[in-house]
Amino acid sequence: MSNYPMVPGHEVVGEVVEVGSGVSKFTAGDIVGVGCLVGCCGGCSPCERDLEQYCPKKIWSYNDVYFDGQPTQGGFARATVVHQKLGYVWLKGQFVFRFVVKIPEGMAVEQAAPLLCAGVTVYSPLNHFGLKRPGLRGGILGLGGVGHMGVKIAKAMGHHVTVISSSNKKREEALQDLGADDYVIGSDQSKMNELADSMDYIIDTVPVHHALEPYLSLLRLDGKLILMGVISNPLQFLTPMVMLGRKVITGSFIGSMKETEEMLEFCKEKGLSSIIEVVKMDYVNTAFERLEKNDVRYRFVVDVEGSKLEA
Amino acid sequence: MSNYPMVPGHEVVGEVVEVGSGVSKFTAGDIVGVGCLVGCCGGCSPCERDLEQYCPKKIWSYNDVYFDGQPTQGGFARATVVHQKLGYVWLKGQFVFRFVVKIPEGMAVEQAAPLLCAGVTVYSPLNHFGLKRPGLRGGILGLGGVGHMGVKIAKAMGHHVTVISSSNKKREEALQDLGADDYVIGSDQSKMNELADSMDYIIDTVPVHHALEPYLSLLRLDGKLILMGVISNPLQFLTPMVMLGRKVITGSFIGSMKETEEMLEFCKEKGLSSIIEVVKMDYVNTAFERLEKNDVRYRFVVDVEGSKLEA
Repeated sequence: MSNYPMVPGHEVVGEVVEVGSGVSKFTAGDIVGVGCLVGCCGGCSPCERDLEQYCPKKIWSYNDVYFDGQPTQGGFARATVVHQKLGYVWLKGQFVFRFVVKIPEGMAVEQAAPLLCAGVTVYSPLNHFGLKRPGLRGGILGLGGVGHMGVKIAKAMGHHVTVISSSNKKREEALQDLGADDYVIGSDQSKMNELADSMDYIIDTVPVHHALEPYLSLLRLDGKLILMGVISNPLQFLTPMVMLGRKVITGSFIGSMKETEEMLEFCKEKGLSSIIEVVKMDYVNTAFERLEKNDVRYRFVVDVEGSKLEA
Repeated sequence: MSNYPMVPGHEVVGEVVEVGSGVSKFTAGDIVGVGCLVGCCGGCSPCERDLEQYCPKKIWSYNDVYFDGQPTQGGFARATVVHQKLGYVWLKGQFVFRFVVKIPEGMAVEQAAPLLCAGVTVYSPLNHFGLKRPGLRGGILGLGGVGHMGVKIAKAMGHHVTVISSSNKKREEALQDLGADDYVIGSDQSKMNELADSMDYIIDTVPVHHALEPYLSLLRLDGKLILMGVISNPLQFLTPMVMLGRKVITGSFIGSMKETEEMLEFCKEKGLSSIIEVVKMDYVNTAFERLEKNDVRYRFVVDVEGSKLEA
């Protein structure tokens, strides 16, 4: 959207070094986080419901244009000069601090980072669709950055979690490292039949075209298929597959700031940790090459502060 | 499912002429109704939740095989000999009367009939998905037997109701006879744009393949597209259309007996009446010919009692 080169970084954790005169929620020294968004209109129906992620005028934390006409440049910087208005929106007659959250005390900064997008992206629909309660059975389709967080968060909610994958490659790590309860390959028809009609929800993180029928079959009455992948080709389903079982196909998009705060507290309380690899800035090109080969377990976290940056 | 010729009739209203010794809920002279189902297993999770319409062993009121191995023969008969077990299911150690409902006093029998399938089919999802509350904006896509009941019931719930149709043919009757608030032709792009992001739900009664995007666009945040048509080709959608707005594509299948009773009381209380054409049995072939030409407003009701039947 801007004419500047894109600088990414949308799961940002840092220390407040200075605050403007209107800021009461934070003081210098606080560890805070910024996620995907840094602005919204504040006046639409989603904004008024504290669901600013669905605001049609939301401003992304990178590769977007800020209120002042300047490009947003993400979080990969030694310091982010926080403009007086950064994170403020005009809401019901006053500016309200919205897009910065406090990282709970005792939570490691590198652990907090991937929660700010991947974490809240799975937390939000589980919370919204009434699935944040123990005893449910869930499926996580696809084990990447979001999927791995899905297993962690669903387990912390007390669910029985089955990872659904296209191969056996991640079986051991899913069961042993992530604590999933079961693992099934989508093409294993006999195991898929066994699991038919057993799940309350499936979080579908697959970002490419795929058939939905095999996964709709796994859902029980009122089960929910929650899509997280932005896919350019249309997905298909047969209407009786949803009607006979009142099943729901839906999707969700990151989460609200309110949910981000809730989710951070939830992860702190449950002692949830993500599996990450911390790298320095000079490793970024290698990290990108490894990302392309799907060679990351499960998120790279760039230690900007600890990296030697050019002035 | 049976080898007998199919005799239909799944919206049946009649007078109880005799009851068996185990029947306490009804006595001779009561006006009662039977809908799509006459049996279920009683032991599965849907049955235990009073959602017998989702029981995998449900028994249809026609063209199915009853507990005793005999075919079920629907409601087009001068009298239905109600077997001792008709409407009973084995539930938690006792037979429970389940598939017969009392028609509320003062409700005309011909008015009650179309409620037993078409009525509960629209009432059930509105009830289940939290949409039975005033102030919502709904769309009814397709104005046939179910759609017409959709307008009536949604209006009775206090909704602003827009009929979405493929032509202007039914505009006047939708607005004047049925009391819809608005009427839009799906191909009228400028009016569809105007209505974008405005509806809390759409009840989609179209029984043939159709694009979903135009209707998903009409839904606001958390809006629900509720499918009622059993369609043999897969329907398609783009994932961002549901993700960016947390929209729900779902479907629903008739309704439970509990909801049927609730719905009858609701219709009685609201003075809701359907638009029907009462015919005698000897008109049935003509009725079928007219049905094929879509020439019915909106349900034929066959007056079996008043028809001259062969012995």
